[in-house]
Amino acid sequence: MSFKVNTTISQFGGQLLKLTHESRFTKTSMDVNLFIPPAQTKKIPVLLYLSGLTCTPQNASEKSFFQYFASKYGFAILFPDTSPRGAQIEGEDESWDFGTGAGFYVDSTTAKWKNNYNMYSYIHKELLTELSKSYPELDFNNISITGHSMGGMGALVGYLSLPGKYKSVSAFAPICNPSIVQWGEKNFGNYLGNNKDDWKKYDPTELIKNYNGPITDILIHQGLNDNFYQSQLKPENLLEAAKNGNYNGKIDLRLVDGYDHSYFFISSFVEDHAKHHAKYLGLY
Amino acid sequence: MSFKVNTTISQFGGQLLKLTHESRFTKTSMDVNLFIPPAQTKKIPVLLYLSGLTCTPQNASEKSFFQYFASKYGFAILFPDTSPRGAQIEGEDESWDFGTGAGFYVDSTTAKWKNNYNMYSYIHKELLTELSKSYPELDFNNISITGHSMGGMGALVGYLSLPGKYKSVSAFAPICNPSIVQWGEKNFGNYLGNNKDDWKKYDPTELIKNYNGPITDILIHQGLNDNFYQSQLKPENLLEAAKNGNYNGKIDLRLVDGYDHSYFFISSFVEDHAKHHAKYLGLY
Repeated sequence: MSFKVNTTISQFGGQLLKLTHESRFTKTSMDVNLFIPPAQTKKIPVLLYLSGLTCTPQNASEKSFFQYFASKYGFAILFPDTSPRGAQIEGEDESWDFGTGAGFYVDSTTAKWKNNYNMYSYIHKELLTELSKSYPELDFNNISITGHSMGGMGALVGYLSLPGKYKSVSAFAPICNPSIVQWGEKNFGNYLGNNKDDWKKYDPTELIKNYNGPITDILIHQGLNDNFYQSQLKPENLLEAAKNGNYNGKIDLRLVDGYDHSYFFISSFVEDHAKHHAKYLGLY
Repeated sequence: MSFKVNTTISQFGGQLLKLTHESRFTKTSMDVNLFIPPAQTKKIPVLLYLSGLTCTPQNASEKSFFQYFASKYGFAILFPDTSPRGAQIEGEDESWDFGTGAGFYVDSTTAKWKNNYNMYSYIHKELLTELSKSYPELDFNNISITGHSMGGMGALVGYLSLPGKYKSVSAFAPICNPSIVQWGEKNFGNYLGNNKDDWKKYDPTELIKNYNGPITDILIHQGLNDNFYQSQLKPENLLEAAKNGNYNGKIDLRLVDGYDHSYFFISSFVEDHAKHHAKYLGLY
């Protein structure tokens, strides 16, 4: 399906495109923002940014300042939505941390949700494939992935479950072990059912134990003033699992004093993440 | 009056403080955001950023990206509100471009508005004086001024009407000749009455004709895709008036192709403005 360009906004010498398209995985209309840096002679690498709970494509586009560094290094950034919207499923809009705005980047298997809540296939398959057709100047074979909170989990899951697809991964305050925290239990239980073995394919801490794809450093920032750190995020579990598993790359977990869970935290460290990915994307 | 600290947020190694205080000029409670860069051994210079129509202190704090450069160069940034709020004046909340969110940085003289709508004295006198008492680590004698749209006008008016108070001025898409455009006529007419001679003290194009204070370069960015450019902003009038008046400094008007009136435009050029002010503030 082709993309409708709703708005084209000049920023940092490039263009921020606000797009809409029809998804066959969510069976809804999906919004996505795409920042394309100033024109280059060769194909432009891509960074995929997955947002956290409640976000639309606008939040990170307006508040992360990734575009400044994307323009500087020369990569595009893709800001997808966080769930289908308007799927008309009963209960979809009842809580801020489940349903609309909380797709958790999984393919649902339960009767109620499986018709629409398929953000894993939507993001990693459909969206990238469709964009590569519409924007041939972008190199979707040279792509990295990052994200925040639920989106940080989505980024780690994408990297670890599709070895070699993403050149590198990083995350801001990611949910690292969703199977054992309240956010994960609520969402995985609804989307995937009650058999916890079925949750492992979307749990970074489980995935890293058996990962055997290409090894890169993984950069993670975690604020120590983040109210969700101990209860929902648990980055130490990921490090422990990596140590006991096959992952022999460096997981560079930076615990930063005073920082919270907001875009003020994200914007403070995008420079480090942009540089991390630019290296693996061959930009310096 | 002292400031209540509502929130302290870590960002870019510094702190964004969300403050509230009681103003004797607006006779209301006023919100103001203050970004303080990482601690330094000497007193910290200040950049005052005046926002445009409808904005609160939050918009620029979240979307301008000024804090990144403030942290890099070592200046504080002050983001005041754009009007009194809740003054309970009839008609105050009826339109987006007048009353609440549209104080136009003037001291009102009409019976209806003069009790509260005194943003000129509030900003240039009260706020800076009160902050200097509460934050002695900041150097309010080494301060520059910038702003967007209505706030760009406020910045130019502050610089030109208080010679030497601000070390330098810049503006993003400022209203340069309010006396002859619809926004100015509506607001000045209400706040200042119908004698247009009384409007001149708040009109940059009028003020620059007789300015005889210290001379600095003035940096102005104006997007060519900005719908308000021709009808409301008129930067060319300011240049023409400067040429025919006493101002022999350079007015560096950069007309930028493709850019609109939004924070995407502002954030694209904050680096240039931060550098401009850092020079006059003695930071490099």
